[in-house]
Amino acid sequence: MKAEQNELLCRTDAGTPMGELFRRYWLPILLSWELPQPDCPQVRVKCLGERMIAFRDTKGRLGLIDEFCAHRGVSLYFGRNEECGLRCPYHGWKYDVTGQCVEVPSEPAESGYCQKIKLKSYPLHEQGGVVWVYMGPADLQPPFPEYEFATVAAEQTYTSKRSQECNWLQAMEGGIDSSHVSFLHSGALNTDPLFKGSKGNQYNLGDKKPVFEVVESEGGLYIGARRNAEDGKYYWRITPWVMPCFTMVPPRADHPMHGHFWVPMDDENCMAWSFDYHPVRELTELEREAMEAGKGVHVRVDRNFRPLQNKDNDYLIDRAAQKAGKTFSGVEGIGMQDASLQESMGPIQDRTKENLVSTDNGIIMARHRLIRAAKDLAAKGALPPGRDPVHQKVRSVAVVLPQGTPFKEGAGEALKAKAGVAQTSV
Amino acid sequence: MKAEQNELLCRTDAGTPMGELFRRYWLPILLSWELPQPDCPQVRVKCLGERMIAFRDTKGRLGLIDEFCAHRGVSLYFGRNEECGLRCPYHGWKYDVTGQCVEVPSEPAESGYCQKIKLKSYPLHEQGGVVWVYMGPADLQPPFPEYEFATVAAEQTYTSKRSQECNWLQAMEGGIDSSHVSFLHSGALNTDPLFKGSKGNQYNLGDKKPVFEVVESEGGLYIGARRNAEDGKYYWRITPWVMPCFTMVPPRADHPMHGHFWVPMDDENCMAWSFDYHPVRELTELEREAMEAGKGVHVRVDRNFRPLQNKDNDYLIDRAAQKAGKTFSGVEGIGMQDASLQESMGPIQDRTKENLVSTDNGIIMARHRLIRAAKDLAAKGALPPGRDPVHQKVRSVAVVLPQGTPFKEGAGEALKAKAGVAQTSV
Amino acid sequence: MKAEQNELLCRTDAGTPMGELFRRYWLPILLSWELPQPDCPQVRVKCLGERMIAFRDTKGRLGLIDEFCAHRGVSLYFGRNEECGLRCPYHGWKYDVTGQCVEVPSEPAESGYCQKIKLKSYPLHEQGGVVWVYMGPADLQPPFPEYEFATVAAEQTYTSKRSQECNWLQAMEGGIDSSHVSFLHSGALNTDPLFKGSKGNQYNLGDKKPVFEVVESEGGLYIGARRNAEDGKYYWRITPWVMPCFTMVPPRADHPMHGHFWVPMDDENCMAWSFDYHPVRELTELEREAMEAGKGVHVRVDRNFRPLQNKDNDYLIDRAAQKAGKTFSGVEGIGMQDASLQESMGPIQDRTKENLVSTDNGIIMARHRLIRAAKDLAAKGALPPGRDPVHQKVRSVAVVLPQGTPFKEGAGEALKAKAGVAQTSV
Repeated sequence: MKAEQNELLCRTDAGTPMGELFRRYWLPILLSWELPQPDCPQVRVKCLGERMIAFRDTKGRLGLIDEFCAHRGVSLYFGRNEECGLRCPYHGWKYDVTGQCVEVPSEPAESGYCQKIKLKSYPLHEQGGVVWVYMGPADLQPPFPEYEFATVAAEQTYTSKRSQECNWLQAMEGGIDSSHVSFLHSGALNTDPLFKGSKGNQYNLGDKKPVFEVVESEGGLYIGARRNAEDGKYYWRITPWVMPCFTMVPPRADHPMHGHFWVPMDDENCMAWSFDYHPVRELTELEREAMEAGKGVHVRVDRNFRPLQNKDNDYLIDRAAQKAGKTFSGVEGIGMQDASLQESMGPIQDRTKENLVSTDNGIIMARHRLIRAAKDLAAKGALPPGRDPVHQKVRSVAVVLPQGTPFKEGAGEALKAKAGVAQTSV
Repeated sequence: MKAEQNELLCRTDAGTPMGELFRRYWLPILLSWELPQPDCPQVRVKCLGERMIAFRDTKGRLGLIDEFCAHRGVSLYFGRNEECGLRCPYHGWKYDVTGQCVEVPSEPAESGYCQKIKLKSYPLHEQGGVVWVYMGPADLQPPFPEYEFATVAAEQTYTSKRSQECNWLQAMEGGIDSSHVSFLHSGALNTDPLFKGSKGNQYNLGDKKPVFEVVESEGGLYIGARRNAEDGKYYWRITPWVMPCFTMVPPRADHPMHGHFWVPMDDENCMAWSFDYHPVRELTELEREAMEAGKGVHVRVDRNFRPLQNKDNDYLIDRAAQKAGKTFSGVEGIGMQDASLQESMGPIQDRTKENLVSTDNGIIMARHRLIRAAKDLAAKGALPPGRDPVHQKVRSVAVVLPQGTPFKEGAGEALKAKAGVAQTSV
Repeated sequence: MKAEQNELLCRTDAGTPMGELFRRYWLPILLSWELPQPDCPQVRVKCLGERMIAFRDTKGRLGLIDEFCAHRGVSLYFGRNEECGLRCPYHGWKYDVTGQCVEVPSEPAESGYCQKIKLKSYPLHEQGGVVWVYMGPADLQPPFPEYEFATVAAEQTYTSKRSQECNWLQAMEGGIDSSHVSFLHSGALNTDPLFKGSKGNQYNLGDKKPVFEVVESEGGLYIGARRNAEDGKYYWRITPWVMPCFTMVPPRADHPMHGHFWVPMDDENCMAWSFDYHPVRELTELEREAMEAGKGVHVRVDRNFRPLQNKDNDYLIDRAAQKAGKTFSGVEGIGMQDASLQESMGPIQDRTKENLVSTDNGIIMARHRLIRAAKDLAAKGALPPGRDPVHQKVRSVAVVLPQGTPFKEGAGEALKAKAGVAQTSV
């Protein structure tokens, strides 16, 4: 890969081609519980290189505005969330959820001064326990997102987030890449409470040379990984990717399905969102406890969403557990196994040194679609795929099919999210 | 404000226009107790971007010299302060308080080698519990400073210092700006032992729309903030600013008067000096205890003068106290309330994004005087105001005046420091 | 010294003149016990700016390869050391000790794909408890190193290492410079169990104006420091330097002899190797315990080889001990006394500000030889001195000679390492 292509894909500040692409989508930015009630403390957020403050006002409305007061640049993190506005702690300038300044105490109200002051702000939308942001031009705002995990009943879904100390793309490429499961996560497949006990795991561990087939979907890709099953049949694990950064992990038996959003904070940090949901039943108490304890795709984090296992402590690598085969890399936990390796590539992976193979086809095609869409947007203003809620209603599937049956045909309707219809999973 | 003006005001390394301006004044650099006795341990100091070592020699003389030995560059912090000189720990080269090398042990004394070696050094002057430095050309050295806090008896005055992680200018502008008191410090006015119990506080809290008038003084500015009092009278709080970086806070009743020096360490750090003194009486034991405990304008610091509340711990922000109105910003303590906000602007505030209003007139005029003085110095060698001790003998005043009386006329002689004359304070 | 000369000497990344010079020698890179047995955990190493992984395979062979997998750039630190190869934790790519990829699980073995993948690797050689690396062109590999400390029986020698947070050159110049001993280490000479009790120490402390004579050796220099002894005789301490970065400390009575390697990790960090050996007897249990406890030239370090005394804690400077004369600089321990001062010069010493004197002649001549050798290598491909094992077989000597006897003549054969022959030491 050429250095300029890598730059194009990895840089997402305002004004960059990929930054503009990201600014055409609704992206997850907060967990609803971070702003639990009207007039609760505001929080700092960083997304696509921009520093902002999110708050919930007296009427419960959500606001996301520039972190710094328009007056003399003080951080509104120290401000007061009161009476339908965020008040700067320095001289009491007050802003509503749209960033509009509604009071400058030192100026006469009749002067109309405060109406001229407006902070940058972006619309938020709350759905499925997640607060979503749209950071693009107002007239191009897409419909609200309808990813299935965020539309099922609250009892059926669980979402967490963790910061990751590397560029978003190498993180997302780990989410697309299902070939590493047989290696990196081999120790966890039969022990993690949210993964174990599936026949699919035996196929997964039994055939370490999966064959990949990738087909385009309306909003991105379906990546099929084929492994040998009994009687000459094939075990297919199908991983959907929806532009720009949504991936799902194929399910295991009746376990909840999971997946991720990989959202750039800045070019060297991203927020990894992890969700688990079941399309037709509530999560059990044991499942929910496991998720909260950092099992499955989830991770234990500190109050800033930094994992307790992190690069400063070498992810608590345990060489004895690695030697004994309990973990493949010595790092405990599926989520941290991924994160540790992705961070180990450096802040921004140097893709000029890669050597890609056929199992990387999903990654290759995703990069091509992203580059193409970013260029089409920059050159022609063409709106990218993945904005339409129909594109977002996908599922990952694990299925055994006869030889000769193309996976997309064999999986058929199971690849679409349909309310009240159970997942297809082995 | 234009970016180049901001650069001009904020950069103070040697050779910059503002750096040269600062190098025409006596500046506080150490508390006397940091060098308590002859031959005590030397200390590291950084001022205007220069790294230096200060020490007190066997005869009690003070020296401030380059941190690094002229021989091979070892830090003299590890040297020995002995027999009227600081000896490098590596090969025993020895320097006196003027930076003159007085011994190179490996060279024959008769060679005269050591006479040729001299470290950069600056004159120090000790007064009022403070060690002052002059870092400019020897022939332009001004008279010794005579700010009142440093000339009253030791029993009447108390000075502390704390490092602040931002440029000096945004720190000083907080010292000039008395309009924020009604907001940021509102919780403290009636509870802080060094602020409470003044009728002025009621005026302060009762009128949040002060009107500002600014007049030039010989050495800088007097900034008058007018609030409504009873019977159509005005309550005036008058804040003097003396070039380049001395500010005072208007007093409250019989409490000690206080103020600050804001001295650049480098472009992204400054030392905030805080003093409290009473012109005609000794500080009480309770007052002194409160100052030592970080009340009033003082702050609790570690042995490197870094506040215990700092940006790494979000200044121990307490959202419950903020919600309950005990503090306005959630941060405890008047000094840290200021410092937290000033640091939150970033290492160097981007003033191209400001929106200044009439209450910022003092700040605007101070910037103009600084820019003008820096340019006049650079272009014509004109020595700036504020060097003359007469310019330094100012007081802040809090006074109730009839409508129609200009504050400077109304306050009159109370704006001048006069030995044995009490402050004018409401 | 000119800035460009300083740059030339200090920069050692691949492609720089000094980097190429270093790449013509065997250099110590690991202690053998860091890789204690076949298939033990691999370790990360950084040398001459290159990040690498070292491991010992199932057959006990040593390998040093690029830290990052050729596939998608994951760090092999998290890999598995198993069955004669290091397996990447992500997709199971496997490399042998030469960096050759021997398995890409996803690709058919018959495709021959993995044969085309080879990581950068360098030959290692294990000798004397030390693992040595040669990072230069294969056809220019010198004979294996034969420094005496690494050729005597294991019972006679002890080696430790510690990282140092500064450029290699200012560290090595401390090793060449024996004139600082009378100052910096004066407190330790009569108390350190590995230094005390030598008559030489009295000469050392008694004459602080040594006269230096420097003569070239085949592989570098002999630096003689002359001090006055009884009866008009001279006490000579002779310090050999072998290119590019090997130094020895003159011995004291029957104590073990010691010395150092100063190996660049990157331009702002180096690894200081410290050895102690006795040519004709085993180290005593007390001596070995003292070395392990950080006495003599050794230092107590954490598991990353960072000293427990370091710049973050000001090397635990003790001003009372300094005042009392127990230590000269306030820092405890000979090794840390040196390291603290060398680090205090900054990451890369600015040699344009130096003032060198006659006692720095050894340093001056070493720099000249290094510059000359680096230029000759770059211009003419001339291989530098110090590669031949004969050049490496040197000893440091402490001897009393009559006036008029040149030290090299007087020390004679004592300057050469000879198996079974005791050191010459006062």
